[in-house]
Amino acid sequence: MFNITQLSQEKINKIIQDALEIAGGKSFKAKQDIFVSNLFFEDSTRTKTSFDIAERKLGLKVVPFDASHSSVNKGESLYDTVKTIESLGVNLVVIRHKQDRFYEDLKNINIPIINAGDGTGNHPSQCMLDLVTIFQEFGKFEGLKVGIVGDVKHSRVANSNAEALRKLGAKVYFSGPSKWFDEGAIINGTFLAFNELVKEVDVLILLRIQHERHENKHGFSAEEYHKKYGLTKEREKLMKPNAIIMHPAPINRGVEIDTDLVECERSRIFKQMENGVYARMAILKDALEQKGFEFE
Amino acid sequence: MFNITQLSQEKINKIIQDALEIAGGKSFKAKQDIFVSNLFFEDSTRTKTSFDIAERKLGLKVVPFDASHSSVNKGESLYDTVKTIESLGVNLVVIRHKQDRFYEDLKNINIPIINAGDGTGNHPSQCMLDLVTIFQEFGKFEGLKVGIVGDVKHSRVANSNAEALRKLGAKVYFSGPSKWFDEGAIINGTFLAFNELVKEVDVLILLRIQHERHENKHGFSAEEYHKKYGLTKEREKLMKPNAIIMHPAPINRGVEIDTDLVECERSRIFKQMENGVYARMAILKDALEQKGFEFE
Amino acid sequence: MFNITQLSQEKINKIIQDALEIAGGKSFKAKQDIFVSNLFFEDSTRTKTSFDIAERKLGLKVVPFDASHSSVNKGESLYDTVKTIESLGVNLVVIRHKQDRFYEDLKNINIPIINAGDGTGNHPSQCMLDLVTIFQEFGKFEGLKVGIVGDVKHSRVANSNAEALRKLGAKVYFSGPSKWFDEGAIINGTFLAFNELVKEVDVLILLRIQHERHENKHGFSAEEYHKKYGLTKEREKLMKPNAIIMHPAPINRGVEIDTDLVECERSRIFKQMENGVYARMAILKDALEQKGFEFE
Repeated sequence: MFNITQLSQEKINKIIQDALEIAGGKSFKAKQDIFVSNLFFEDSTRTKTSFDIAERKLGLKVVPFDASHSSVNKGESLYDTVKTIESLGVNLVVIRHKQDRFYEDLKNINIPIINAGDGTGNHPSQCMLDLVTIFQEFGKFEGLKVGIVGDVKHSRVANSNAEALRKLGAKVYFSGPSKWFDEGAIINGTFLAFNELVKEVDVLILLRIQHERHENKHGFSAEEYHKKYGLTKEREKLMKPNAIIMHPAPINRGVEIDTDLVECERSRIFKQMENGVYARMAILKDALEQKGFEFE
Repeated sequence: MFNITQLSQEKINKIIQDALEIAGGKSFKAKQDIFVSNLFFEDSTRTKTSFDIAERKLGLKVVPFDASHSSVNKGESLYDTVKTIESLGVNLVVIRHKQDRFYEDLKNINIPIINAGDGTGNHPSQCMLDLVTIFQEFGKFEGLKVGIVGDVKHSRVANSNAEALRKLGAKVYFSGPSKWFDEGAIINGTFLAFNELVKEVDVLILLRIQHERHENKHGFSAEEYHKKYGLTKEREKLMKPNAIIMHPAPINRGVEIDTDLVECERSRIFKQMENGVYARMAILKDALEQKGFEFE
Repeated sequence: MFNITQLSQEKINKIIQDALEIAGGKSFKAKQDIFVSNLFFEDSTRTKTSFDIAERKLGLKVVPFDASHSSVNKGESLYDTVKTIESLGVNLVVIRHKQDRFYEDLKNINIPIINAGDGTGNHPSQCMLDLVTIFQEFGKFEGLKVGIVGDVKHSRVANSNAEALRKLGAKVYFSGPSKWFDEGAIINGTFLAFNELVKEVDVLILLRIQHERHENKHGFSAEEYHKKYGLTKEREKLMKPNAIIMHPAPINRGVEIDTDLVECERSRIFKQMENGVYARMAILKDALEQKGFEFE
């Protein structure tokens, strides 16, 4: 799975259902030896650990792979590395790579490839866990209002989420520093001033600020960002009674969100992480079942 | 478990008994899937490998965690990192961290936390393996004379060991360069000249010299240290017939101890490492049983 | 196992037979808990991953070891590190180390040690997988003509392969830049001009160019090397009908071999990687059975 938007609505629904069944206590275990490997060419402990646990919960055998010591450093191409892993008997790989659409180089690989984030492009398992979290809360997407706030332009999450949510019937709103918006690119939602958006939405998704990339360029200090585009205690009070707060993490406490709100009643931030494991189990199971592997 | 001195004598005895039963061949295996992760924010292959093996021998599922690539590097707090690991479904964490009493920041974590070393403070599993090794040898603590030699001031091991041993009825003696002693702090033992101490004790614990910290500051070369405070072949001959030698390792051969004595008859240095796995199995089992997990 | 040339022909044949049975679908699983650890003091993802998978396929428990964070960095000797791993309860270690014949320091270690490459000396599991691949193809060694091309002088593979193949009855030919040959050292084969060798052999083993070591020293650009000593499409056409191409990988595409030939019909390059897992399973199984462990 490379891209959430390539999936049919039926497939998305199936994965959500499986994830919610697992969340409810259902267990799936591989009926035979299945070897998987997580090829993370870019750091992301959270996503990697989530896959690592999902794989172990499914009873898969996880083969360690350390990208920083790999032959890629001797100039080996991504294709040759993945072909090697396939030749060694690995049955599925999860890949994170900084190159946009890295999977286009991997067409001759015969084992399933799960995209765990490519460049600023796609991050389908993160998107799926957001969908699971929203569906778990509201039991539907149709008619929901979802607000995405922050660096939409550079966020993998924002772009795929918006597209998937619109397809599933939700209304998507954006907010954040206007300089961070590529006006032309916002085709999947409507821009709103942050104070308006906060009152309007059922789901408020706060994006992580990439300090690395923006602070100097756009001249926001952490304090200024928090004041203008962060979820303060005052703004939280404006939210609808059943509205929930989400964030892909890691959180910059006191920047995107007041530190006291991180674990407040309407926060689903740590719930998202929990659901991430279930969503990834469902994604892995689906990919392996398509290759004829069975679970019990 | 954060600190050996917080444990009741009853609990210490139970863990020692369990460890010795395991040493004698008894096996304990988790009756269900239990996920654990070793969060080592400071290098310590020996301790980490020991936990890694202890966990696998108990049939636990070990989820890899690479601190050097983690979000802590993006400024995430220890609390948020551990809360994430908990949210992902890990049932117990082992933590090593350079900050003294790091666990005080982790009060809202609901899964058991095993302290694998905090700053220069505590290292309870190391202390426990020393207790197991001593009890295995002598069958008691009451009346035993234990000598601890070296950098007592900076040693996690020395401080907790001394306190625990005194509580359990042993007499503790210290030796080493006098500059390395914080006179006021030695409340759990008596200072003796090294040549006196060697003749007196049943258990001789040699501490590792931290070359990094002292050599320049205190002006000892390795040779000088060995001559004055190292266990030479001559000094070894002064020891009581059944007295044993211990060292937390890694050893500086020819500094704290003559290289030929490392595996001599009265050395328990590699035995300590073996016992470390049993002690950690007992500690992990105890922590998990308190949360309702079962072993068979 | 340190060295392929120390093995009896009988032992080599047994390991090849076991590997081919595994290739044919036969499964071997440890009947009890067996702990192994891969101590790679030199990077080699391919070899390490191959062992990692072989071990898991045999049902062994793999204990992670990160050499870059180990006590070796605190000055601990290889012996003390391995003795520690043994004391912790590991039943077999696989070691890769840049020091020639590192295993000579490890005579007092009681658990089996598998050499996964020492300095420029030996790499017996790589050699064994080559033997498996050749035998799988031709069903014999007697009378086969094998050509080894490239940096024979610096290649672990070349030297042990040549010696083993000669012992087993094959004829070995070498080619490559003449400066890279230590004339005196070529006692196990005959030097041929590359265009001659290509027509002659049943098995063509292309060695990886070590860019790091030679480019400046010998003045070959990648293009020049390819033209003179690389397998171009023209040269491939000169090969005998059933001759096969082998390469220890990672491949420099367009240098040792034309990129389009890497997966051509007579290439066994990725097959070698697959066989590497089977060969290592057979090697591990043999070493463990000698210690009384059983497989089913």
